[in-house]
Amino acid sequence: MLGDRQIWRSSGRLADGREIVYFDESPGRAEPPGKQERPASRPESGLRWDPLAGEWVMYAADRQERTYRPVAANCPLCPSRPGYGTEIPAADYDVVVFENRYPALTGPGRCEVICFTAEHDGSFADLSPRRVQTVFEAWADRSAELGGLAGVEHVYCFENRGEEIGVTLSHPHGQVYGFPFVPPRTQRLLASAHAHRQRTGRNLFDDLVDAELADGRRIVARNETWTAFVPRAARWPFEVMIFPAQRVTDLTQVDAAARAAFAMVYLDVLKRLDALFGAPMPYIAAWQQAPARAARAEFGLHLHVMAIRRAAGKLKYLAGTESGAGAWSNDVLPETAARLLREAGGGSPDGR
Amino acid sequence: MLGDRQIWRSSGRLADGREIVYFDESPGRAEPPGKQERPASRPESGLRWDPLAGEWVMYAADRQERTYRPVAANCPLCPSRPGYGTEIPAADYDVVVFENRYPALTGPGRCEVICFTAEHDGSFADLSPRRVQTVFEAWADRSAELGGLAGVEHVYCFENRGEEIGVTLSHPHGQVYGFPFVPPRTQRLLASAHAHRQRTGRNLFDDLVDAELADGRRIVARNETWTAFVPRAARWPFEVMIFPAQRVTDLTQVDAAARAAFAMVYLDVLKRLDALFGAPMPYIAAWQQAPARAARAEFGLHLHVMAIRRAAGKLKYLAGTESGAGAWSNDVLPETAARLLREAGGGSPDGR
Repeated sequence: MLGDRQIWRSSGRLADGREIVYFDESPGRAEPPGKQERPASRPESGLRWDPLAGEWVMYAADRQERTYRPVAANCPLCPSRPGYGTEIPAADYDVVVFENRYPALTGPGRCEVICFTAEHDGSFADLSPRRVQTVFEAWADRSAELGGLAGVEHVYCFENRGEEIGVTLSHPHGQVYGFPFVPPRTQRLLASAHAHRQRTGRNLFDDLVDAELADGRRIVARNETWTAFVPRAARWPFEVMIFPAQRVTDLTQVDAAARAAFAMVYLDVLKRLDALFGAPMPYIAAWQQAPARAARAEFGLHLHVMAIRRAAGKLKYLAGTESGAGAWSNDVLPETAARLLREAGGGSPDGR
Repeated sequence: MLGDRQIWRSSGRLADGREIVYFDESPGRAEPPGKQERPASRPESGLRWDPLAGEWVMYAADRQERTYRPVAANCPLCPSRPGYGTEIPAADYDVVVFENRYPALTGPGRCEVICFTAEHDGSFADLSPRRVQTVFEAWADRSAELGGLAGVEHVYCFENRGEEIGVTLSHPHGQVYGFPFVPPRTQRLLASAHAHRQRTGRNLFDDLVDAELADGRRIVARNETWTAFVPRAARWPFEVMIFPAQRVTDLTQVDAAARAAFAMVYLDVLKRLDALFGAPMPYIAAWQQAPARAARAEFGLHLHVMAIRRAAGKLKYLAGTESGAGAWSNDVLPETAARLLREAGGGSPDGR
């Protein structure tokens, strides 16, 4: 399962009952803290149905109190040290996942934090390929585990990067949501794939990737296992989708070779994004995978990277057109975005 | 049509062929400049179909060059003065609409700018009730005119307010889009309304407003003609919908009494939003109305105000959950938002 790289997994409970899982690249972790009772769920949280949009909306009133841009010495995602306990009751870790203290979802849903490194400074783009593989194992592990929880309908692994996108903790980390519903984007992709199958007899994601490979103008990086491209109808200034050569439905289905090969393409893309304007690129990176239970067969797993800086010092905002009408407007042509990314210095010889 | 307030409308063409329409509250405007040829449409603009989301995406590459936060002396939305020509070739105006020099839509679509006042400083909340009525006439006029253009499927009147939402010109203004397609939000509302009619035999918007009036906890302001409330499943920290007492499909159908009465409720809501945190509230305000041609009967016109400051100094960002999964998370309970807005000093005795 882990290619040539072994990973040591250990799990336990934090003092307040939240689950924590370590993914270590070497053995020897001491036992995690013992299980305690989970606090009662908060009365002011939950889901409400929006009858106009036909969608669920999540409420989490106590998230207003969540930690907001602490100084590095107070970072809750660093390892604990003598006299200062953080969210992680350990002196060191490689990759660790734990339930969010300020979840957007409670009840049947679940929100987890995934720390990519114990190093406070830096970013995902600075991780070693080995570490990216360990992160991938954690994503696949959480997809399997949360997808098996009663009431969880979809597992969503994502990273928000940059203050410009609202990140309140700079320590390199992402999140894993176990949604108690299939979120709208996933529903929409599945509906499009089913309609495409009915109309053409083919798979939508296969056709999309084939068309991008045949065209070639929007390819950013690729190796034998993964292809990164700016989609022809990109809605973000710099938007990249990374698909495996062999379509799979979800993260658990990615084989060992592809898990190992992912790092080279993704790190290359991230370094190109940071190089574009000579400044850390604010982005959202989201794994789009099949729902945990609903119709799954037509889905094509891919990583969806949405970068929001449209020019040096200028961001893309979701204003009246996008937020009010749901209609996207993009100032950067996808072919231009792909060319600029290819010209920006990448970090890997695998990128072309 | 104009209640007891007359408005003088005159239209013409700017030097480069773009249309301009003045809505004056007093007579005497000199003739606007003569019509000239429209420049050729730009090759790098247009629409692309996104096969995954099943939506159109708009491209406008030369918008990257649009005017970005000019100093007040260089404001392109102020009246022209001797030696300095702005977008408006007139020494003064009340309300003026003209085609955007940097449109997000070309070809069958259309993008217009609407200036609410010749005063550079201030905001919509500072307009007089009479001026709000004039703006309403302009919205209705543009809805009728753009809705009648070949290829325009939907007219969308909106205002983005605040640098925090990406506004690049601070002069009080909004926009009017003539979409060459029915945008996703409008499609979704219509689909929900049709499903509701099939299921219940009733109109969705009527039921929504009736439920809010019956509950009462989320009402923010109202008079005989308009009701402003935070919807039960609000997705923005401070979201307000303003519905007329008598459901109508679009802006052109609002009668003279309702046009005159709108200002008192809307100005009250805007003043409460600004008072909430003692700072100008960044918001999107969007008229949701029926498409120009497609099935219209079930639609319920309303103004949709989305305010993005969730606490003093803190904004709501559309990050991984919203942008990647399409699932909204809100830290402010709708009942709390409505209570805070009622407690914030409003500007009108009509607000309750």
